[in-house]
Amino acid sequence: MEFTNGQRAEILVEALPHIQKYRNKTIVVKYGGNAMINEELKLSVMKDLVLLSLIGIKIVLVHGGGPEINDMLKKIGKQSVFVDGLRVTDKETAETVQMVLAGKVNKNLVGLLQNAGGKAIGLCGIDGKMFEVEPLDERLGFVGKITDVDTSVIDAALDAGYIPVISTVGSDSEGNVYNINADTAAAKIAGALKAESFFSMTDTHGILEDVNDPSTLISKINVSDAPALIKKGIISGGMLPKIDCCTEAIRRGVSKVFIIDGRVPHSLIIEILTDEGLGTMFV
Amino acid sequence: MEFTNGQRAEILVEALPHIQKYRNKTIVVKYGGNAMINEELKLSVMKDLVLLSLIGIKIVLVHGGGPEINDMLKKIGKQSVFVDGLRVTDKETAETVQMVLAGKVNKNLVGLLQNAGGKAIGLCGIDGKMFEVEPLDERLGFVGKITDVDTSVIDAALDAGYIPVISTVGSDSEGNVYNINADTAAAKIAGALKAESFFSMTDTHGILEDVNDPSTLISKINVSDAPALIKKGIISGGMLPKIDCCTEAIRRGVSKVFIIDGRVPHSLIIEILTDEGLGTMFV
Amino acid sequence: MEFTNGQRAEILVEALPHIQKYRNKTIVVKYGGNAMINEELKLSVMKDLVLLSLIGIKIVLVHGGGPEINDMLKKIGKQSVFVDGLRVTDKETAETVQMVLAGKVNKNLVGLLQNAGGKAIGLCGIDGKMFEVEPLDERLGFVGKITDVDTSVIDAALDAGYIPVISTVGSDSEGNVYNINADTAAAKIAGALKAESFFSMTDTHGILEDVNDPSTLISKINVSDAPALIKKGIISGGMLPKIDCCTEAIRRGVSKVFIIDGRVPHSLIIEILTDEGLGTMFV
Amino acid sequence: MEFTNGQRAEILVEALPHIQKYRNKTIVVKYGGNAMINEELKLSVMKDLVLLSLIGIKIVLVHGGGPEINDMLKKIGKQSVFVDGLRVTDKETAETVQMVLAGKVNKNLVGLLQNAGGKAIGLCGIDGKMFEVEPLDERLGFVGKITDVDTSVIDAALDAGYIPVISTVGSDSEGNVYNINADTAAAKIAGALKAESFFSMTDTHGILEDVNDPSTLISKINVSDAPALIKKGIISGGMLPKIDCCTEAIRRGVSKVFIIDGRVPHSLIIEILTDEGLGTMFV
Amino acid sequence: MEFTNGQRAEILVEALPHIQKYRNKTIVVKYGGNAMINEELKLSVMKDLVLLSLIGIKIVLVHGGGPEINDMLKKIGKQSVFVDGLRVTDKETAETVQMVLAGKVNKNLVGLLQNAGGKAIGLCGIDGKMFEVEPLDERLGFVGKITDVDTSVIDAALDAGYIPVISTVGSDSEGNVYNINADTAAAKIAGALKAESFFSMTDTHGILEDVNDPSTLISKINVSDAPALIKKGIISGGMLPKIDCCTEAIRRGVSKVFIIDGRVPHSLIIEILTDEGLGTMFV
Amino acid sequence: MEFTNGQRAEILVEALPHIQKYRNKTIVVKYGGNAMINEELKLSVMKDLVLLSLIGIKIVLVHGGGPEINDMLKKIGKQSVFVDGLRVTDKETAETVQMVLAGKVNKNLVGLLQNAGGKAIGLCGIDGKMFEVEPLDERLGFVGKITDVDTSVIDAALDAGYIPVISTVGSDSEGNVYNINADTAAAKIAGALKAESFFSMTDTHGILEDVNDPSTLISKINVSDAPALIKKGIISGGMLPKIDCCTEAIRRGVSKVFIIDGRVPHSLIIEILTDEGLGTMFV
Repeated sequence: MEFTNGQRAEILVEALPHIQKYRNKTIVVKYGGNAMINEELKLSVMKDLVLLSLIGIKIVLVHGGGPEINDMLKKIGKQSVFVDGLRVTDKETAETVQMVLAGKVNKNLVGLLQNAGGKAIGLCGIDGKMFEVEPLDERLGFVGKITDVDTSVIDAALDAGYIPVISTVGSDSEGNVYNINADTAAAKIAGALKAESFFSMTDTHGILEDVNDPSTLISKINVSDAPALIKKGIISGGMLPKIDCCTEAIRRGVSKVFIIDGRVPHSLIIEILTDEGLGTMFV
Repeated sequence: MEFTNGQRAEILVEALPHIQKYRNKTIVVKYGGNAMINEELKLSVMKDLVLLSLIGIKIVLVHGGGPEINDMLKKIGKQSVFVDGLRVTDKETAETVQMVLAGKVNKNLVGLLQNAGGKAIGLCGIDGKMFEVEPLDERLGFVGKITDVDTSVIDAALDAGYIPVISTVGSDSEGNVYNINADTAAAKIAGALKAESFFSMTDTHGILEDVNDPSTLISKINVSDAPALIKKGIISGGMLPKIDCCTEAIRRGVSKVFIIDGRVPHSLIIEILTDEGLGTMFV
Repeated sequence: MEFTNGQRAEILVEALPHIQKYRNKTIVVKYGGNAMINEELKLSVMKDLVLLSLIGIKIVLVHGGGPEINDMLKKIGKQSVFVDGLRVTDKETAETVQMVLAGKVNKNLVGLLQNAGGKAIGLCGIDGKMFEVEPLDERLGFVGKITDVDTSVIDAALDAGYIPVISTVGSDSEGNVYNINADTAAAKIAGALKAESFFSMTDTHGILEDVNDPSTLISKINVSDAPALIKKGIISGGMLPKIDCCTEAIRRGVSKVFIIDGRVPHSLIIEILTDEGLGTMFV
Repeated sequence: MEFTNGQRAEILVEALPHIQKYRNKTIVVKYGGNAMINEELKLSVMKDLVLLSLIGIKIVLVHGGGPEINDMLKKIGKQSVFVDGLRVTDKETAETVQMVLAGKVNKNLVGLLQNAGGKAIGLCGIDGKMFEVEPLDERLGFVGKITDVDTSVIDAALDAGYIPVISTVGSDSEGNVYNINADTAAAKIAGALKAESFFSMTDTHGILEDVNDPSTLISKINVSDAPALIKKGIISGGMLPKIDCCTEAIRRGVSKVFIIDGRVPHSLIIEILTDEGLGTMFV
Repeated sequence: MEFTNGQRAEILVEALPHIQKYRNKTIVVKYGGNAMINEELKLSVMKDLVLLSLIGIKIVLVHGGGPEINDMLKKIGKQSVFVDGLRVTDKETAETVQMVLAGKVNKNLVGLLQNAGGKAIGLCGIDGKMFEVEPLDERLGFVGKITDVDTSVIDAALDAGYIPVISTVGSDSEGNVYNINADTAAAKIAGALKAESFFSMTDTHGILEDVNDPSTLISKINVSDAPALIKKGIISGGMLPKIDCCTEAIRRGVSKVFIIDGRVPHSLIIEILTDEGLGTMFV
Repeated sequence: MEFTNGQRAEILVEALPHIQKYRNKTIVVKYGGNAMINEELKLSVMKDLVLLSLIGIKIVLVHGGGPEINDMLKKIGKQSVFVDGLRVTDKETAETVQMVLAGKVNKNLVGLLQNAGGKAIGLCGIDGKMFEVEPLDERLGFVGKITDVDTSVIDAALDAGYIPVISTVGSDSEGNVYNINADTAAAKIAGALKAESFFSMTDTHGILEDVNDPSTLISKINVSDAPALIKKGIISGGMLPKIDCCTEAIRRGVSKVFIIDGRVPHSLIIEILTDEGLGTMFV
């Protein structure tokens, strides 16, 4: 469908109150998983982020990269060991994760943001000692838990006008590298930055009453109601840890937390710059 | 017609390269005459300006106010005297002009910009000694000619984040008030600010080859070709002084000068944030 | 009488301790009414203000303009309606007030300050949303009451080295313009700025024990004693609302409030830079 | 051998004039190859850099990582193709280089600097569009040539008090990643920063008259004499491209360029903070 | 004689144009010799300087102290040696000069300025390596000649809001202390600061046509006419070196240089803040 | 003994953790008495201070000058009067102290620091009204007690990059000069600056259990234990007032206070930049 430029202009102007609401605020966007695989969609998300940064929103992009990590582990013929059904991250795996996330996925996102006209800088939890890390569970090896976030290097990047793009690996004082769950890390960063909003872009519709029926989307959840929803089984499986992150971000002072569907084109723009709410908002 | 939010988002993202081009640049917009009478249109222009300022463009609004001045002169029963067919601006008329422009039209525009969510401040050529003025022609009384523009007060307003709204009256060292042609003043201000662009919003389509046929719009004129167009009669009448202002603005270092149709809704947004050029551009 | 330059120098040096006391402090001066009609006196007040600003005092000038408003209303043949003896401000009257105050009186004061060598900028309550206004009394029409003062635009002007000159008109969110009592507005501004002093320049000697005998001037009143003075009839008539403003300014944190006689040449300079106190001080 | 603290203090004080010479100056250190393999030596170099940064020298660290790249290429079973005896960098190889350099070597150096008490940030030529790249030779695939260096992101890091650690990969506007020779890139960065000095840490003694006799070290070479030395065969083999970088750095405004022996413990400290010159200086 | 406060105010206001002319400008005042002996006069000069600094003039005070030095030399029983009729400054004399000037006269002036309400800081040519000194004439011992002035420490003092008070002693790189003629030093400082004006306060009326007749004061001398006046004998004796300083200050970019009579109460204020010129101005 | 440059470099690097601990912290060093007489030692202390300032420590040097004062008093033939065994400081003595301290000792230290490559500025308690003083004991004449320290002028000097060197003389509001005990003044300054450390350089080993046996040095004293040590006679004589200063500095917020032996070469460097503690530390 074609739009006239008059229609285009009208739509731009209608975004005005939304722009005013978010201007000069900081938002943290967790982006990853399958929503990141589709190249066209990825480009579109990058453009969305650049647009949001140009209208004066301070963007912090935290990314995962599971599929690329798995490809690389396969490529080097790495066999994973499991303990109680959980994958163990040995030294070689941790280093591969670091390499793939901080060296490949991260810098590629930086490149895409810049080709879309933004200014970006690629960081990981090691830079400026952003993450203080300890092992999450001794049996799982180099899977880390963030005990403290130092946002100095993020603040410096934002102040200098860059979009910080962050890989969620960190190291301890002995130089051991740890892989850290990207959702958890992003929520901790959002909390440490006292961000206005935290957006978790997933490849789901959000929280559904009936997981098979997108029309049953719950558009707003009060964190105090989360336990009941878990009990009822509405929040379950892979969504459970995401909910934990969302509630923790709220507890640490983030005003609004959203789970949005990264597969919908321009879902961030729709959520932030239109009247429509696409996914589930936590308050 | 209704748009989906997906379409809205897409359109917003397509404005990205245009936003990047104008970000952190200064533009001077001359707004006046009949384009300013329609209240709905006026509100729409104010929203456009606020949007442009929110995406990082430094806006300077220069306004006229002929119709309001005429209404007021009629109200106080002022009869104009003419010399060689030109209206003489006596002391009472000049004071009325000052009062209507700087007290009514100006502050009302400030109020509208602010109700649209902007931050604005109303100034005239007297504030901060912005204009140095001398009589244009002794016979015409208090009609002024700007001999110098001191942009300090405009810069201070822009630096503090306000949209300066400027009435084109000024005073000389004896305190006499002068009415100054708004097009000329706006062009001088644009030149003094080394603005990126100067937009003259008129109630015409722009420069037309055939004045009765809007499809003959000349979308681009090189200032060096202006004399030939005047000779051919394509530029004539009330458009002549506007052309003078445009060519002077270009000469003083403004990169691009536009005559655009203020009657078209969102014409500024269309001109700045879409691929379409509505009026005539001078280079 | 002629002074030698040695005498002049001596007098300048004797002002030293007074200058030190006020340096870098903010003072709000309410100037209006009959004290503003005499042109020579007005020029002299402007010079006083410029001198005070040059020795490092931050001056905020708030003005009224009753006589000019009345002249204009008469000129346009406007008949006032009265309710319970109080003049009703209808839309046309409010717009006339705005035009005369913000367009004529204000910019003329700016021009005079600048011709005296100062740097000034003319503002009203609409600029930078300085005043939040609601109707004072529905029956009186567009007579406003200030519910909040945002001093950002005043601060920006002072920081950039300008003397802000303020007309006391404001607008509500629907764009209706309101006339606001200048004494009340000035006191609110002084309070919001946490000004060092607030000077109300009147055309009286100050508060007199016997209104017919200037020698009975009360030079200092503790605000807690005001009710008694009102009861005794010493403060009455037009002075009553001024007293209200003075006591409110004190309550909002202004250190010293003065009612001084604007008809005495250089009364501000005498009050601020000499040992003499001309009018009545409230503490 | 043990030192008394008195001796320690004396030595510290003797460094004074050297500290004064370099304080607040920028130096670029190229570190790589075999000098980077020995873990103990690497730690020692990191400590040296942190010390230099603490005494007020602005350090920019540019690193290579040939051995780690080769290990990784072997691990994924990548066979190299050669054209005219030169290795071709295909897409997969370029991506592996990016991953190893920017993801592993770079962040590990950042971690080491921080464990030694410094503040560091890991960057590559993609961050902040630091490098503008084009193919060096179409036949070699993704081997890049830097056509322009934008130091903004380096400046921002230095201003915020971080040691920028830079991997020499870059991308073009289509997102293709290129491997860039670290010596060349470091020299270009030094030139673009107008660095005080450029140190190329190698695993050789410097330039020797007789390559087998360390006692024949040439401690100072005037760039204008380089061609003669090349002709005589004194500069040859792998040293030739290094010499090109050194002379280019000098031409681009770097005051002093050094080839120093990275295998000597604390060679940077010796070169900068003592009277001794370890390697070859170009002027 | 008594003044009314109205007269006082009038006189203050008449100083307005003079204040405007000097505001934010730097003036260097050389104060010394007999004009400094009278305690009452000294206090009065200090008040004048504080007043000038409070109205926004940047004051640099350079002082001599011949009489105090002579007193001290006498007290310690020091006999002077003469070479060709010129007094030789041996090490002990130089140290006594340093002690008396920088320790006594200087800090006492600082104390007086502060008791008059100013903020002052006492410096000498050694502080911040303000003076680079070499012997003026080997035969005269430690009499110095300034070869360069580094104004950093003066600028730092002015920027922090202090009146720098400067003793004209300096030291060479071996730590030898030199006495430097205060007039010469003050003129050099004025030149290095590109001061607006340089005032040399003496105990004479200025340059007189007839040295015995104060009514023959030459109020303005063009430096190009100085040689002729010297030839005619009008400028002679102790005035000769002062003239040299004045002409050098003019040559180094000081706009106006004055020789004024320090014995006249408030002579600086009269010269700067009234229409009267007391002494001789060089242009 | 000769060191290789490799050894030198190693020692420099070993200072790293110490540098990190003190960087950007303020330390106050009291230097005086006999430790200041030996010229070679004095030069060495100055170099130490410059080194410490170059590695980013903010140094404030407070000095005494007893021996020079005594020399001068003897030179002018001044006989001291005693009251109850305490020397009376009459006006002439106080002025001599001021002259010798602020004019000679102070500026000479400034000169030495600068010849060692530092940037220094000489101040006394009169500059910027640093000290508010009252008589310590009426019978002792002009011996002062500091009732308040205004650190503005010290802060300004440190901010501008200078080492402030301070003589402990001050004046009261009548201009009387007072001599102030340097230890007490230094401790007050350290407290007012909330310094990290206060170093009192003496010509003793520190506090000894047995005053005749240096091996009985008490390396650490908790201020709460001081009374017991005084009772036991371990702290006695001239050490008593020093202890008072140390405990007061601790009470006023200085973290660590040291009495160190100024006769040991580089004792400050040893104390600050090595693992060794030379003297006695109070906590």
